[in-house]
Amino acid sequence: MQVVIIGSGNVATVLGRLMVSNGHQILQVWGRNALHAATLAAELNAEAITDINAINTEADLYLLAVTDSALAEMASQLWLGDKLLVHAAGSVSLSVLKPASTRYGVLWPMKMIRKQMQTLTPVTIFIDGNTEEVMKELEALAAEFSDTVSRANDEARAKMHLLAAITSNFTNHLYHLANHYCEAENIPFHLFLPLIEDTVSQLRVSHPREVQAGPAFRNDSATLERHRKLLAQYPDILKIYDAMTASIRREFGWEPQN
Amino acid sequence: MQVVIIGSGNVATVLGRLMVSNGHQILQVWGRNALHAATLAAELNAEAITDINAINTEADLYLLAVTDSALAEMASQLWLGDKLLVHAAGSVSLSVLKPASTRYGVLWPMKMIRKQMQTLTPVTIFIDGNTEEVMKELEALAAEFSDTVSRANDEARAKMHLLAAITSNFTNHLYHLANHYCEAENIPFHLFLPLIEDTVSQLRVSHPREVQAGPAFRNDSATLERHRKLLAQYPDILKIYDAMTASIRREFGWEPQN
Repeated sequence: MQVVIIGSGNVATVLGRLMVSNGHQILQVWGRNALHAATLAAELNAEAITDINAINTEADLYLLAVTDSALAEMASQLWLGDKLLVHAAGSVSLSVLKPASTRYGVLWPMKMIRKQMQTLTPVTIFIDGNTEEVMKELEALAAEFSDTVSRANDEARAKMHLLAAITSNFTNHLYHLANHYCEAENIPFHLFLPLIEDTVSQLRVSHPREVQAGPAFRNDSATLERHRKLLAQYPDILKIYDAMTASIRREFGWEPQN
Repeated sequence: MQVVIIGSGNVATVLGRLMVSNGHQILQVWGRNALHAATLAAELNAEAITDINAINTEADLYLLAVTDSALAEMASQLWLGDKLLVHAAGSVSLSVLKPASTRYGVLWPMKMIRKQMQTLTPVTIFIDGNTEEVMKELEALAAEFSDTVSRANDEARAKMHLLAAITSNFTNHLYHLANHYCEAENIPFHLFLPLIEDTVSQLRVSHPREVQAGPAFRNDSATLERHRKLLAQYPDILKIYDAMTASIRREFGWEPQN
């Protein structure tokens, strides 16, 4: 396909790169920042533009990859007729694209994307479209980038976004807190990588309920108190420790459910 | 080495199996439950005993692998002279073994061990001993089972135990909560496995601070409110959502630190 990329950030860069490596041709890269647009355009062998009115209207696909909060306003400045227009944002409605085209959709890679990535995998890509034909076309495109492609409308995508926050952002924050503690106490954080990787690998074979362990799960109050004492100098970590402990205890019947 | 295993549960089974596969000979398996002792002894080609006074006192190594709360009392019933005695519990003091031998230590695989495991890896094993010679001996033994062996005295082991709870038990609980939500909302949990695995794989190359993402990190209150609405029917998950969000916001300066 011939593609115009509107945006020059992380998502524009990585999706553009993947399109090129899958045989698509990038005609133009638009960027508000001329240097960013020129840099990405050079990598993708495309023309750099900074004037939204200079967009080539003969491409097959327009990827609108600007920050979430700018999507609606950018779309309102475009009119692409029946050319396929997509955005790549998990938490933005499909309908923001309606002013700009009669055929529009979403292709959301559920991953934190950074410029230096050469590949997206492993990743689940969620797609949506304003017609069945658009959805089929985006499913085929997304399948070039990932083995795991799934449909999700606005409401479903909002739920996926929530689940991504819980399973990725929150777990990463726990690693961050543990890393803090390790740095303060001179403990090598890498000692915990085998345990962390093992915990995750269980998800492919077991329900999380079956592998829950630890003092809160066992209602082992002596160990819970010992852990709390070790956190006396870390009130932020202690708050999380108490919240997670209470939640595990509710889950396994040691405390009443809400 | 010639080994006597006192216990017939998960840790006794898996460590016993690893010892046999590394060329050690298991002389006896003691178990309070005759059937459990006989089953494990048969697998390890050892004698099953249920009388603690029937223990062969000529072995090189005695592995005391009973439940944490029974360790001290079991040790008080043994006298092994200068035979090496070890327990495998993270949160129990080395000193509980003092009444039973002049040479004693700890070999703690930091992992949730279940009978069906044929291998321990990936795992970090922490060892301790009452003398330098015991520590060296246990380091060599642990190195047969894992590439990652580290020393940790009682105090250090308590900190490792806390960090294991944060990085493994708490993250698993987050997967459990997400799985609940998926089951209730008819969302396939497996869609999140690529994201979860990717989040963990970042730990080998980046500091967790560098890869933190999500609405709390960005101070994106519109998305936070949308997520909270999606959790209205899930008060237990909402509590955790709020606690984690507050902690991330404190961490990245959107809320005052404690």
